[in-house]
Amino acid sequence: MTGDVLGFTAGAAAAGVKDGTPKRTDVALIVSDRPCAAAGVFTTNQVIAAPCVVTRRHLERGSLRAIVVNSGNANACTGEQGERHAYTMARAAAQRIGCDPYEVAVASTGVIGVPLPVERITKAVKQMGLRPAAWIDVATAIMTTDTKPKLTGIELPLGAGTVHLRGIAKGAGMIHPNMATLLAFVMSDADIGAPDLRSVARDAANASFNQISIDGDTSTNDTFLLLANGASGVKVHGDDLTLFAGAVRTLCEMLAMGIVADGEGVTRVFEVMVTSAASDADARAAARTITTSNLVKTAIHGADPNWGRILAAAGRSGATVDQNRVTVRIADVVVFEGGAPRAFDHDAVRLILSQKDITIGVDLGLGAGKARAWGTDLSAEYVRINAEYTT
Amino acid sequence: MTGDVLGFTAGAAAAGVKDGTPKRTDVALIVSDRPCAAAGVFTTNQVIAAPCVVTRRHLERGSLRAIVVNSGNANACTGEQGERHAYTMARAAAQRIGCDPYEVAVASTGVIGVPLPVERITKAVKQMGLRPAAWIDVATAIMTTDTKPKLTGIELPLGAGTVHLRGIAKGAGMIHPNMATLLAFVMSDADIGAPDLRSVARDAANASFNQISIDGDTSTNDTFLLLANGASGVKVHGDDLTLFAGAVRTLCEMLAMGIVADGEGVTRVFEVMVTSAASDADARAAARTITTSNLVKTAIHGADPNWGRILAAAGRSGATVDQNRVTVRIADVVVFEGGAPRAFDHDAVRLILSQKDITIGVDLGLGAGKARAWGTDLSAEYVRINAEYTT
Repeated sequence: MTGDVLGFTAGAAAAGVKDGTPKRTDVALIVSDRPCAAAGVFTTNQVIAAPCVVTRRHLERGSLRAIVVNSGNANACTGEQGERHAYTMARAAAQRIGCDPYEVAVASTGVIGVPLPVERITKAVKQMGLRPAAWIDVATAIMTTDTKPKLTGIELPLGAGTVHLRGIAKGAGMIHPNMATLLAFVMSDADIGAPDLRSVARDAANASFNQISIDGDTSTNDTFLLLANGASGVKVHGDDLTLFAGAVRTLCEMLAMGIVADGEGVTRVFEVMVTSAASDADARAAARTITTSNLVKTAIHGADPNWGRILAAAGRSGATVDQNRVTVRIADVVVFEGGAPRAFDHDAVRLILSQKDITIGVDLGLGAGKARAWGTDLSAEYVRINAEYTT
Repeated sequence: MTGDVLGFTAGAAAAGVKDGTPKRTDVALIVSDRPCAAAGVFTTNQVIAAPCVVTRRHLERGSLRAIVVNSGNANACTGEQGERHAYTMARAAAQRIGCDPYEVAVASTGVIGVPLPVERITKAVKQMGLRPAAWIDVATAIMTTDTKPKLTGIELPLGAGTVHLRGIAKGAGMIHPNMATLLAFVMSDADIGAPDLRSVARDAANASFNQISIDGDTSTNDTFLLLANGASGVKVHGDDLTLFAGAVRTLCEMLAMGIVADGEGVTRVFEVMVTSAASDADARAAARTITTSNLVKTAIHGADPNWGRILAAAGRSGATVDQNRVTVRIADVVVFEGGAPRAFDHDAVRLILSQKDITIGVDLGLGAGKARAWGTDLSAEYVRINAEYTT
């Protein structure tokens, strides 16, 4: 992209959140120079972390000016003081930039069940240097077991002018010592109303972050925030809104695929494309169930064109399935059709499956619903990483 | 048990179902000398195998006289001829014992997507020797990757007299080359009406087979059949019905636990007991989600008292969860309570977790709902077995 999102600055610092030793950056701040329309999508886990509770509350009150985030401690399962600590983070950021604490979103990722060392964070935030285009600093500061920062951008020419989007995420690989957390922040300089933005955020999350799986678990801290500050002066509505929604979705899909590819113990990534489902919701459910099936995941690990496991996963997904109308393709080769397996060149398909990126197509032959999902193989390395003593 | 179920005979034969070479017994017949009240619980997978479709149809028509079963081929994903083959198996059994084909239930387990070599089976069935108390022969003939036959019995003194129950099952470990299949048959000489029997079967399956998981997948062929032929002359109703239902449930729990312990690549089995849930359904969902979580399964493999993964699995199960009211116990040691982790002796708990059988207790602090579920660890060996080239 040639231009960056207008009106945003950011910064990061090493606060030693985890153990008091500042080894790497672990606190970051994203700031808009004016109020942003904002939308959030949070974990559906009922065991929800304090920063998610606090941010949800702040979003209900109106627009945002900033996001403050830390890695090294998830501030989850931390009892009543957890929410006080999350609010304290928001207040520190508000003091740093001169706004109301309610205009600050809070996100945390890392170890759960350990009280947040909030003074370390507030101290870092108060001294935080801020500059334009510091996205890589933020992307790096929120990493936990990610092996690389996840950062992407889109310059989007609309009928009314050009807007910019910037996306940052961290991974769904398991976090020492407990759960995976997915954090994703998308910033834009588009001028768009909060109701439209909420709908865009929900659709983008459904098509991307909600369709990826490394281990099928949902973290206590998952957070996706979409901010639009209007600094481009481009009002988004009508056809432009459709284009803007598509760009946010694409950005989120790129981030989601980056997260999947960087999952712990992952040696292969596969995409499942479900077509001709009775509905989009059916297609999403079928695609997601296939990507989360341990039997499918181990077959992918073994480069095994095991159509039976794929078909059976679709069959238990809750989507309407008529086995006589299903076509299963592995790497574009039809392996099941008309209620029965079709002969295919096993060696050729195994060769394709031995590559890193794999596509599985499932056509349900029923309607117009379609969806994609992304999953990872299940490797012995995954087991090793996650069986280690961690609490 | 001192007495066997009255009025039943059984037999098994080696038909070479899989590849034409009769190496081991793979066809079996269970016969009642009189019509049985019968109830069945089948896979909820929409990709359902032909024998399940045929048996469900036969159960709708009334009572049963026999069950014919084969291993080595699941007769699943076999197109239109699959149902004809399943019916042909029923007809062969009917001819052997002199009844209507609709009085015969059919079950199959093994490879999917390969046409059933039905002539091998019908030939074996027509020549089948039948004798009383041949249960071990049936339990052995239905094995696939099970390492041992699963067989148990209960002699149940009721107010109206003594009845007997006999249970046979095969495992939920993965079957070469595709899906796990769970088959369970419970025979009794009680005199009980079909409506009562259906309710007993449903409750027993919910408390047992539906609460076990090795890999979270649902096979195309899962079948549980409960037959009662009345040969004891003991009519079951009132308080006796409650006792009878409890005995069937206990029998099914014993079979279910045997299946779990014999799962492929399993080194540890764990029981999850959820109490004080808002409802029994909530408790079942929470217990089942904990046993199917890969994060919990790998923690158990690593003997890691990882309360965070347990709590988060409960939180995403759909059950109502208030983290401030949850108590988590690992091997009877309280590790989480009142919204925050509690200090405990990690080494002592790790030592307990290093044993083969592990109990996890989750008290949701909300209501009177309770349930148990049984799961297995996730080992590198599981991955190795299931990543092998199998189609």
